[in-house]
Amino acid sequence: MTTRIDRDYALELDRQDKLASFRDEFVIDDPELIYLDGNSLGRLSKRSVARLQDVVEREWGSRLICGWNEGWFTLPQRVGAKIARLIGAEADEVIATDSTSVNFFKLVMAALRARPGRSKIITDDLNFPSDVYLLQGAIDLLGNRHRLHVVHSEDGLSVSTDQLRDAIDDDTALVTLTHTAFKTGYVYAMAAITEEAHRVGALMLWDLSHSVGALPLALNECEVDLAVGCTYKYLNGGPGSAAFLYVRKDLQEEVLNPIWGWFGQKGQFDFGLQYQPAKGMNRWQVGTPSILSLSAVESAIDLLLEAGIDRLRAKSIGQTEYLIGLWEELLRPLGVTLNSPRDYRQRGSHVSIGHAEALRIDRALIEDLNVIPDFRYPDNIRLGIAPIYTSFADVHAGVSRIRRAIVERLYEKYPIERLDVT
Amino acid sequence: MTTRIDRDYALELDRQDKLASFRDEFVIDDPELIYLDGNSLGRLSKRSVARLQDVVEREWGSRLICGWNEGWFTLPQRVGAKIARLIGAEADEVIATDSTSVNFFKLVMAALRARPGRSKIITDDLNFPSDVYLLQGAIDLLGNRHRLHVVHSEDGLSVSTDQLRDAIDDDTALVTLTHTAFKTGYVYAMAAITEEAHRVGALMLWDLSHSVGALPLALNECEVDLAVGCTYKYLNGGPGSAAFLYVRKDLQEEVLNPIWGWFGQKGQFDFGLQYQPAKGMNRWQVGTPSILSLSAVESAIDLLLEAGIDRLRAKSIGQTEYLIGLWEELLRPLGVTLNSPRDYRQRGSHVSIGHAEALRIDRALIEDLNVIPDFRYPDNIRLGIAPIYTSFADVHAGVSRIRRAIVERLYEKYPIERLDVT
Repeated sequence: MTTRIDRDYALELDRQDKLASFRDEFVIDDPELIYLDGNSLGRLSKRSVARLQDVVEREWGSRLICGWNEGWFTLPQRVGAKIARLIGAEADEVIATDSTSVNFFKLVMAALRARPGRSKIITDDLNFPSDVYLLQGAIDLLGNRHRLHVVHSEDGLSVSTDQLRDAIDDDTALVTLTHTAFKTGYVYAMAAITEEAHRVGALMLWDLSHSVGALPLALNECEVDLAVGCTYKYLNGGPGSAAFLYVRKDLQEEVLNPIWGWFGQKGQFDFGLQYQPAKGMNRWQVGTPSILSLSAVESAIDLLLEAGIDRLRAKSIGQTEYLIGLWEELLRPLGVTLNSPRDYRQRGSHVSIGHAEALRIDRALIEDLNVIPDFRYPDNIRLGIAPIYTSFADVHAGVSRIRRAIVERLYEKYPIERLDVT
Repeated sequence: MTTRIDRDYALELDRQDKLASFRDEFVIDDPELIYLDGNSLGRLSKRSVARLQDVVEREWGSRLICGWNEGWFTLPQRVGAKIARLIGAEADEVIATDSTSVNFFKLVMAALRARPGRSKIITDDLNFPSDVYLLQGAIDLLGNRHRLHVVHSEDGLSVSTDQLRDAIDDDTALVTLTHTAFKTGYVYAMAAITEEAHRVGALMLWDLSHSVGALPLALNECEVDLAVGCTYKYLNGGPGSAAFLYVRKDLQEEVLNPIWGWFGQKGQFDFGLQYQPAKGMNRWQVGTPSILSLSAVESAIDLLLEAGIDRLRAKSIGQTEYLIGLWEELLRPLGVTLNSPRDYRQRGSHVSIGHAEALRIDRALIEDLNVIPDFRYPDNIRLGIAPIYTSFADVHAGVSRIRRAIVERLYEKYPIERLDVT
């Protein structure tokens, strides 16, 4: 079945969309701008604006230090509990703190120390590079007693559970993957892979950065041990907002944060001079939490909870299917490839397309056509669907303008140089 | 010479104060509130309000992902360069990122690894507990091959350079102290102690959290190797704002961040899978920097730079001397002790006083007398002077109200329980 390529059809889909009104909850001052980069930096919600104004002017400005006893101290746990509802975890299994990378470091160190005598760490080459660097750093820090086994993707699109199973053995301490691959949007089989890790007694650590807020997750059901994720993508927490980490309840006493800061100390304000890890997830905090950032995150997550993660996923699937349908009609004939899985069950909420001139097309979209996609070296344009604010009309306009950039060769005036965005 | 205890004298001192107008740069909606806790959480500046509104609504809300190429990427370096001017360092020796505790961890790990074969770490029991915990954690992480030597203060007020000299030997890898002690406000002899560390080939790491923005520092002149500090105290960056770290230029290639995140990677957007540390201070970044927090910090620091750190220090000395003069007249006769050095050359910008009922007096000050001091277990009331916005009238009212809390026994109605504030 072919997809209708007329704009009226997109408008019709928007009219049928029961989540459409959530778009009004966001600051969208240029309705002509087609923003398809919510997978990199989510839009600003009006609630976050109001919350930030309140936390800055009233809580910090007027209440000053008293803010700590009026909600700031418990903010990391409160935000964690809300994230827990999005990822199928218990409220006391998640805490919001530090950056994704710092949290990943903490959990990797903890995991390796919880599996002494095992030397192997499994990941793959679709993983976000930061996670790979952090693994290399952890190995270096622990005296090069571990080795990193990087499973290679054969098609550049995905790595199968079979490939991972072949790599996992009795010497494996840790298996860690990014649940939705940052380039291709491929979604791993969380339950099956976690089971493979557990079969040999290894721990499983998932990076949820490109999944959380975009699709429902079932960490408890999949018996996931450890997870991290970021809040500035689909959670709309703002540039560089604080990240989160998850530790399965029955592991919480077993694994230890390697960074022993005062916010992870039992009886923090006793000011004793001997570290004792706090109970539960509190031990994963280190220094003073970033209150402004966490406040913006909290309000933004409230919106997602109201919309409902299952409904958001259903809309996201509808939108990525629609996008791929339009690609088939409008872009594929121009030599644009689909660099994401065709099967929606294996796909997150962004769709990657490829073209030899992708870098310059990306530039033309930004400079000439008021579209903000996302570019990933060497030839990937990522089109991020954030179902809470992306409309079907956005998707239609985005694809139409990409077609125009190619057909009218608008990209030709741009040099071959990098635009660096996160 | 006795201090005049009348309020008119305080007002006269305010009239003579050339920095008095900077108070107007801050949000002070209750002029009757005496805020003496800027050593814990600095006040909100109007510039930070404006800057945060701009970064939220325009940069994030409208410019979206483009914000990264329009100033966000260089914000950690830009804030670092401004902090450098306050601490006597070069612009490319400081970067703002993560929390103080995470930064301290990074530098401790780096220092211990840069001095292989040495097993001793020197600190003292006046250090901020988080730093001590982090040292214990680092020792644990490196397989308990190091031992922590905690020099004990004999009078609870200070630790002398002689005591430290006696502890430092050829087996010492690292000496680390908080430059201004968090409880007593005692200021260490930075140059002399750093020299003692260097005499045996050890590295020196200073925690500047209670010094930066309150007194001029001369890290380069003192040949300091490593330093960290926070931005939410005298730098007025906001609750949990991003911290900073300093590495002396000629050490920058030698020491390595143990947490290998993508923001510390050379050619971050090449997305290669082999970590290579970035040049200079960039390698000390880990994950995506907290843009909201760093923006608030930047504007607040601009104010300090305009006021001038030498002038701020001169005013701070004048104010702590005045406070101690008032203590002598009004509080000492009531059994209140001075728990800070009497000599201003050994004192930072907060003054600690002690009383058996300090905890309840603190409570009465907050609840009944509209004074916010700071309490530190077991019997310390810290009175923080932030010379950029604290007036002499504030100091006069603060001491007068403490006297009232004691004379009128206002504290007696409060139970003996802890109020936890950072």
